[in-house]
Amino acid sequence: MRRVAIVGAGMIPFGELFSSGIKEMLPRTLGKVAASVDKGFSTNDIEAAWFGMLQPSDGYPAGILADSCNLLNVPVTRVENQCATGSDAVRNAAMAVSGGHFNVALVMGADKTRETPSKNTFWDWMALARDMAWDFPLGLISPGNFALHVSRYMHEYGVSRTHLAMVAVKNHSNAVKNPNAQLRFPVTIEQVLSAPMVAEPFGLLDCSPQTDGAAGVLIVAEELVSKYTDRPVWIRGFGLGMDHVMHAHKKSFTSFAATTKAAKAAYSMAGISPKDIDVAEVHDCFTGVELMNYEDLGFCEVGEGKNMIEDGLTLVSGVLPINTSGGLKAKGHPPGATGVAQCVEIFEQLRGDACNQIEEARFGLTHNIGGPTAVSAVIILEKHNG
Amino acid sequence: MRRVAIVGAGMIPFGELFSSGIKEMLPRTLGKVAASVDKGFSTNDIEAAWFGMLQPSDGYPAGILADSCNLLNVPVTRVENQCATGSDAVRNAAMAVSGGHFNVALVMGADKTRETPSKNTFWDWMALARDMAWDFPLGLISPGNFALHVSRYMHEYGVSRTHLAMVAVKNHSNAVKNPNAQLRFPVTIEQVLSAPMVAEPFGLLDCSPQTDGAAGVLIVAEELVSKYTDRPVWIRGFGLGMDHVMHAHKKSFTSFAATTKAAKAAYSMAGISPKDIDVAEVHDCFTGVELMNYEDLGFCEVGEGKNMIEDGLTLVSGVLPINTSGGLKAKGHPPGATGVAQCVEIFEQLRGDACNQIEEARFGLTHNIGGPTAVSAVIILEKHNG
Repeated sequence: MRRVAIVGAGMIPFGELFSSGIKEMLPRTLGKVAASVDKGFSTNDIEAAWFGMLQPSDGYPAGILADSCNLLNVPVTRVENQCATGSDAVRNAAMAVSGGHFNVALVMGADKTRETPSKNTFWDWMALARDMAWDFPLGLISPGNFALHVSRYMHEYGVSRTHLAMVAVKNHSNAVKNPNAQLRFPVTIEQVLSAPMVAEPFGLLDCSPQTDGAAGVLIVAEELVSKYTDRPVWIRGFGLGMDHVMHAHKKSFTSFAATTKAAKAAYSMAGISPKDIDVAEVHDCFTGVELMNYEDLGFCEVGEGKNMIEDGLTLVSGVLPINTSGGLKAKGHPPGATGVAQCVEIFEQLRGDACNQIEEARFGLTHNIGGPTAVSAVIILEKHNG
Repeated sequence: MRRVAIVGAGMIPFGELFSSGIKEMLPRTLGKVAASVDKGFSTNDIEAAWFGMLQPSDGYPAGILADSCNLLNVPVTRVENQCATGSDAVRNAAMAVSGGHFNVALVMGADKTRETPSKNTFWDWMALARDMAWDFPLGLISPGNFALHVSRYMHEYGVSRTHLAMVAVKNHSNAVKNPNAQLRFPVTIEQVLSAPMVAEPFGLLDCSPQTDGAAGVLIVAEELVSKYTDRPVWIRGFGLGMDHVMHAHKKSFTSFAATTKAAKAAYSMAGISPKDIDVAEVHDCFTGVELMNYEDLGFCEVGEGKNMIEDGLTLVSGVLPINTSGGLKAKGHPPGATGVAQCVEIFEQLRGDACNQIEEARFGLTHNIGGPTAVSAVIILEKHNG
């Protein structure tokens, strides 16, 4: 199999884009991707495309991508995998290019989380993301779903709501400097703790927002990389892990089995270990989940997630900066775009172009945990001269 | 890239399966696939899975496949591409296996077309399949959509409603012998012509039914084929073609550009031409569409589709039997499963196990044209000793 690299990556500002449809958002995003390709590229170079979209809010996703971006002469596949949707689109494209089927592939991810095709209810969205017979009737939509896990995790390991709030403070702080973030305001511990309760232990400021957004990356086989840039970002590993859909079937409530499976696959493929990671974007859909991710991704020992945030290790100035973009918490979370946008952030960090630029990063990691904590994706990227 | 083969293929009977959910249908289908593997296989052999599903009627598709079929330790990707959904799942799996990422991959396809997550309306379904700003508000759901094309095609080439009815008669006749078909009754020309009108020129018996169903295939790299069977069916080529979503943008109404693109890619990859095809399953969602497919797939010259059906060339006893399974028209059409079930039929034809077995077939072809005639998939299969 060939090595593959990301040679271009871009996104439009996330937010409540009520004035834009998917057909406007996609061409704008492609323009951002094109602008990031150092030596330029033409859409005629694209040989295939993958489109991550959780909810087809405007209608037929692959057709709308092809039509709105003038990609009518290449195959376009829509991939959906709940909150790992964007990452799984990257994964499928990377496999096809490394396997020799195409040399240049576009990955786009987009969603408008306030819209469904025929009506606009959050419950319609949530129905697609759970199981209609098992967990949905129990009210286990996203906040309640993750609250079950984080509550047990807090109980087991002495994690307080203040630890959770520290995640919000850090990620909002990062978003202030990110022009593409949805919630570009700082928050204090006191504000997070006093916000209205959504689902114990998550107050409003512990929750990621509903977001409209799109992001894209251009994946190229190693033979063609130098045509586009002298500073590619290599895709070194990826993994997709699954777990039971119904919560009563899960073996642990303090660790996400899907994440540990995805991480194991990705680290193994890349031939590195967690200690090699220099920067990461992890799935902070709710604050406490970020602390659990630290442990599941091997960044610390079990139960030590709270120490990482207490000690400031994951700040932009820390030893392992996490969610330098603002994360889902403050950058926003359109599921089809989220994994792709995480790749955009790591791409920029590894090329020295990030809004909260860190020093000396070689390996970056992206991570999602989604649906009823039943799927996770991990992608490992490496700097061009690494 | 490695050669890849289908070593097992199976489906459950299509129909109105109101008593079964997706979680029941998938394990039953996996059992059918397993039973078709000559030398046996264990689900532990599966290294990755792709799941074609248009509408997540029971909730999170990939998670439900993983959970209901005990595939919790392998990555599962849901693919959606309208009526080409099942075929595009096969295509993505075949690329990953031939590229060396996995040795054994399962492809499943399923849909329940009468159900949506939160309510049960056909209009919700249709909204996902068109464009909400362009064609859906014009009423261009499937029957009206294809009626525009077939009406123009009939006008241009002197095709009558009787020619269309001949397609229904042929495909219903084939379905009578297929225990997996939904509409296992013969129809006459007179019955088709006198059936209630749905959308001119399509009467009720010109239309494929709404169907619940599931189908699966097991795709294996060449090195491992002999472990499972001595009579594999090789995947020799595949193509996915796109076209404009909005009908006013299409260059032709008498030929589907998506099909000609997909066919060109598939024939090129297989290194064969249309005259090499011995049997085919083509997308007869409406009778007249089958005649257009004959032309777009290169089985005859432009305008000669009516001659092929008039002369009986595509009967089971003809020179190029088409839709020996009964086709979408009479076997049924659950979009996520349709392309996979077409592969099941060709798999059985090329191994001598089909319900309407033809003689001496080496190459078989499957074809879909879907959404607002904006996507097409073509897959070319070859007999084991071909």
